[in-house]
Amino acid sequence: MGDIGAEFAAFKSDMQKKDQALDAFYLLVCGTFVFFMQCGFALLEAGTVRSKNTKNILLKNLLDACLGAIIWWAWGMGAAYGESGESDGNVFIGTAPDGGGPFLAAGWAEVGFDPANGKVLALWFFQYVFAATAATIVSGAVCERATIGAYIAYTCFITGLIYPVVVHWVWCDNGFLSGAFTQDKDKTVLGGCLDFAGSGVVHLTGGVAALCGAIFIGPRIGRFDDAGQPVPMPGQSTPFQVLGTFILWMGWYGFNPGSTLGITPAGYGTIMARAAMCTTLSAAVGGITVVGFGRIFSKTYDVGMMCNGILAGLVSITAGCACMLPWAAFLTGFIGAFVYYGASKLMLKLQIDDPLDAFAVHGACGFWGVLAVGVFGHPDYVSFGWNGENGDVAGEAHTGFLYGGSTLFAAQLVALIIEFAWVGCTSSILFFTLKMTGVLRVSEQTERNGMDPSKHGGSAYN
Amino acid sequence: MGDIGAEFAAFKSDMQKKDQALDAFYLLVCGTFVFFMQCGFALLEAGTVRSKNTKNILLKNLLDACLGAIIWWAWGMGAAYGESGESDGNVFIGTAPDGGGPFLAAGWAEVGFDPANGKVLALWFFQYVFAATAATIVSGAVCERATIGAYIAYTCFITGLIYPVVVHWVWCDNGFLSGAFTQDKDKTVLGGCLDFAGSGVVHLTGGVAALCGAIFIGPRIGRFDDAGQPVPMPGQSTPFQVLGTFILWMGWYGFNPGSTLGITPAGYGTIMARAAMCTTLSAAVGGITVVGFGRIFSKTYDVGMMCNGILAGLVSITAGCACMLPWAAFLTGFIGAFVYYGASKLMLKLQIDDPLDAFAVHGACGFWGVLAVGVFGHPDYVSFGWNGENGDVAGEAHTGFLYGGSTLFAAQLVALIIEFAWVGCTSSILFFTLKMTGVLRVSEQTERNGMDPSKHGGSAYN
Amino acid sequence: MGDIGAEFAAFKSDMQKKDQALDAFYLLVCGTFVFFMQCGFALLEAGTVRSKNTKNILLKNLLDACLGAIIWWAWGMGAAYGESGESDGNVFIGTAPDGGGPFLAAGWAEVGFDPANGKVLALWFFQYVFAATAATIVSGAVCERATIGAYIAYTCFITGLIYPVVVHWVWCDNGFLSGAFTQDKDKTVLGGCLDFAGSGVVHLTGGVAALCGAIFIGPRIGRFDDAGQPVPMPGQSTPFQVLGTFILWMGWYGFNPGSTLGITPAGYGTIMARAAMCTTLSAAVGGITVVGFGRIFSKTYDVGMMCNGILAGLVSITAGCACMLPWAAFLTGFIGAFVYYGASKLMLKLQIDDPLDAFAVHGACGFWGVLAVGVFGHPDYVSFGWNGENGDVAGEAHTGFLYGGSTLFAAQLVALIIEFAWVGCTSSILFFTLKMTGVLRVSEQTERNGMDPSKHGGSAYN
Repeated sequence: MGDIGAEFAAFKSDMQKKDQALDAFYLLVCGTFVFFMQCGFALLEAGTVRSKNTKNILLKNLLDACLGAIIWWAWGMGAAYGESGESDGNVFIGTAPDGGGPFLAAGWAEVGFDPANGKVLALWFFQYVFAATAATIVSGAVCERATIGAYIAYTCFITGLIYPVVVHWVWCDNGFLSGAFTQDKDKTVLGGCLDFAGSGVVHLTGGVAALCGAIFIGPRIGRFDDAGQPVPMPGQSTPFQVLGTFILWMGWYGFNPGSTLGITPAGYGTIMARAAMCTTLSAAVGGITVVGFGRIFSKTYDVGMMCNGILAGLVSITAGCACMLPWAAFLTGFIGAFVYYGASKLMLKLQIDDPLDAFAVHGACGFWGVLAVGVFGHPDYVSFGWNGENGDVAGEAHTGFLYGGSTLFAAQLVALIIEFAWVGCTSSILFFTLKMTGVLRVSEQTERNGMDPSKHGGSAYN
Repeated sequence: MGDIGAEFAAFKSDMQKKDQALDAFYLLVCGTFVFFMQCGFALLEAGTVRSKNTKNILLKNLLDACLGAIIWWAWGMGAAYGESGESDGNVFIGTAPDGGGPFLAAGWAEVGFDPANGKVLALWFFQYVFAATAATIVSGAVCERATIGAYIAYTCFITGLIYPVVVHWVWCDNGFLSGAFTQDKDKTVLGGCLDFAGSGVVHLTGGVAALCGAIFIGPRIGRFDDAGQPVPMPGQSTPFQVLGTFILWMGWYGFNPGSTLGITPAGYGTIMARAAMCTTLSAAVGGITVVGFGRIFSKTYDVGMMCNGILAGLVSITAGCACMLPWAAFLTGFIGAFVYYGASKLMLKLQIDDPLDAFAVHGACGFWGVLAVGVFGHPDYVSFGWNGENGDVAGEAHTGFLYGGSTLFAAQLVALIIEFAWVGCTSSILFFTLKMTGVLRVSEQTERNGMDPSKHGGSAYN
Repeated sequence: MGDIGAEFAAFKSDMQKKDQALDAFYLLVCGTFVFFMQCGFALLEAGTVRSKNTKNILLKNLLDACLGAIIWWAWGMGAAYGESGESDGNVFIGTAPDGGGPFLAAGWAEVGFDPANGKVLALWFFQYVFAATAATIVSGAVCERATIGAYIAYTCFITGLIYPVVVHWVWCDNGFLSGAFTQDKDKTVLGGCLDFAGSGVVHLTGGVAALCGAIFIGPRIGRFDDAGQPVPMPGQSTPFQVLGTFILWMGWYGFNPGSTLGITPAGYGTIMARAAMCTTLSAAVGGITVVGFGRIFSKTYDVGMMCNGILAGLVSITAGCACMLPWAAFLTGFIGAFVYYGASKLMLKLQIDDPLDAFAVHGACGFWGVLAVGVFGHPDYVSFGWNGENGDVAGEAHTGFLYGGSTLFAAQLVALIIEFAWVGCTSSILFFTLKMTGVLRVSEQTERNGMDPSKHGGSAYN
């Protein structure tokens, strides 16, 4: 009996390692889907700009993907997750256990990661593609007029500082906003918020930075007429827009379900599948609703708006996809369509030129998505959640207020305000500095001629 | 020893749940590949139409993906799989155990699903993308002249009624055509048919509905000259066609291998891998054969035809990919190329204008694919099959007639006739009604000008 | 206790089969990503050629994917892996155990494969997409002037002979260059080389064949002026180039991590994840470095060059992604950028016209990638490696020379020389024969008019 007991124990130990490998496989696949979103953004943006700026926006997307990787390796992931699991970790930014900095490139072990754990290595990849997503959102708001230097500067700043700090707050078990993960709830504000796949962490961050960028850089020449009315600047290629949108939607099946960060822990298969279903419903209703707005208000079936409606639904459900019932996901996407549409119109009213509606899609709907968890978060899913039974806070139900929860909505709102303030302030400093030093925007001549002839050796088409 | 026995029992129970999660992961990945086929159809169709209808066909594909999701949630999956596993279930349509309707949106439990089972939730996602595929096939046949209203009407009708009923018959264990799954073989016609991934259920359904649509809507203006000869209407972009085709081929690696609906049950890894291999061979030989036809009959290497040849091979092997030897898959694709080519020419002869060859690819090859199982279905794979040892019917070999089977071919043929009749009748009623009420086709003026300027706010390109 | 012992043994046996299925799932997913690289090559090439040759290059890519499948089934995999696991196997080419040929189509068992093992079937799929990659590389070098007949000839020759033989040498456990897999080290040259995912096996092979093709076919008309200076021939569409590059990068997450060929053996999760991380870093730094060259030397941010820089980074890390530390991967990609840039300029100097830089990207960086393992191969990863503890050769450390290894660098160099010689000689014979028989290049008239009007029924765009 000793024999079989020992054999069984060895087998179980092997199984644990195999589970690590399967989780790494899961993160590889989901991460690859999310990586492909870089391509989706590139095409959506290339299709939406005018053809004279095609190469420029494509180069920007390639740079994002590349710079993001280097920064996430050198520093970003250390700043986001350094000293994860340590009870006395820094609540603001990830650092090394010995009090050192968050430099990952110096060595995994220094930042508290086990380099022999494939799941951690795969998590680096999965987190890198998230960071790249946050940064790439901004480019849509400043396109057709920002310099390459400005792109490089804000990509480094966002993936190196703004974004990883938000990740640390919300997703690292040391963070002061991390509801699901932090063991010691006293360290968190109101028990912490729940932002499963990052309506706030990723999309609000990207969207608010985009808003700041659009404000500081100013509208494209000719975007608003003398009366302040917007002048249409139709994009060059609807097929690229739709291709980009489908790629993004596809990528979201990595983004949202993948945010369990594993498939083998008990219950994660159900959470993942719920995330996939809720994601689908919210995207679908978002798209239909916004195309309906177009039909009603402008008598056309507007393809570009439908694309944005789908994205609005996707962003809206990103925080709550794991903890809602399907009908709540449906409502989240439906309301998200209104949020997007209103925000988009408001931007035009304010004469803020955001060519890709980056703020309306990612910022406004990201905000709504985080709030929606405070409304629709289901007791069974919030308390079971993605981290065991720690949904309750101080014996009180930490659920959506539709189910009688009293603190979750408040915690979500507080997290939003803090995130908004952090991203807004840091981004404003960044873009203000770029503007003052004259590296934010290209010359009027270059803008009128288009970026491609002046900066990229000629037209994108021959 | 009691200890270790109890520990081992607990471990095995955990493993079962983990297997559910792994199967859900498998369905997520395969479903995401299949979802991406929506993008493939969108680009293949956008590349094949004339540029003045680009936005229109793209919008249609976006609408399909969105409407399909809502309908499959509200109703479709309930109608397809409701009361699955109940021995006294309705053989025609899925319903709730209490005799209620098939509404899924009302609640999973009401329709007999366990909402805590991630595999079932993931199955919803996987089945949704299949339903959307069936509906999207039709758009290729009626493009450049159907109204948006007509698109919406048939998408709802197909994903809400026509398609889920066929699914129930063939793939739900209550269905009267369900060879592989139904426990009580007396309930099935001739022991039931085998349609692994849906040459019949998905492609024949879509293809026959497409045929009805093309007949009722009539040819595009100028498609046939006064002598009844077809006038070429070349598509706007070969790169989009090829991109769409590669995406579809890629998606088929989710469609066919994924149709095991899981990876952990014994033997499923082999079935899945065989499906991938047979799918590859059939697609490849289909493409080569059809490009050869073009070389012989029209002295050109026709890229569009090669794309359709690949799709013909893919559709042809969809039913039998799991139960054939590789050489049989090769022959299935080879014959499928002839079936496609003949059907395509026949349509032109009959002056039926099907711009995407939707019927020739999906309808005709779908028909052949289901029949091919009755010819090439291998004893080891049909009897082992995807559902254990229930390949034999009344002690008689239920195999392809090449291996001496006597009933399978008949069962396949009967299933095809019933499916053809059901889809043909319901689709005809649908398209006839749309035609009579004047909502099927746009005005001649709109058709000549193109949809994009009149309905979608201008050209897709600027 | 006998009961539970037997039960446990049965359970473990089931688990082994389940592991096979999970590994097959892993190979399916990674293989599907790699399959999609065919689409990436198609678009990258279509975007880089002039629009009059669009259909031609697209057809070529479709043909590659199709012919590759048929050949890999009929013969290729048998030639690569036949008699794998047999200690007295042929060291030069895979054959059947009974001394028969390597024909796989005749039957799996004849070539020594177990047709009931899903992992082996899935491996066929995974290896097929690798073979198709090797062949498709060549098309970029001979595009815009090669005949369809020439494409067909070299695709068959490469996937049927040149490539599978190299695979057998390096990746089959019988091969005389197979460091990681061959049990009997005495059979191998210098203990064998380590080429994890095929910088040499796939990319050097494709790249050297491409070089031979480009040399024998000669430059496009007008590519070099009378003074021998290159005349720019800008591609038709930067968006297609970027789309193709992103698809290729995405596909590499199947190519490199997938080359563990399984996820369940102990330690493979870590190897896979390391491969994903190293792949990312090398691609990123390659892209940034090459765009920097463009900025410095030609004062433009060149998108096409950035795409090639990313691909250079990816090819460079393909051999070593599993056995390097992240900083070494970073350096490998950085140096790879120089290798690419230098090789590209050298080709122009030599007046060799390789429109896609196929040799510079795949040949030169493939060479460097294999060497890089001999420099940076880390003791822990090389000895642990992907095949257990057989990294040591004759008691001597078989590691990169940075870690004191003495033989690995030499083994890598010898393997490169042998591969280069084999591929160079066989490709030269092939292209020389094609040239002598007049089927290599189209007529001057056809070349000037473009392939699409003369061979493919008209323009790709309407």
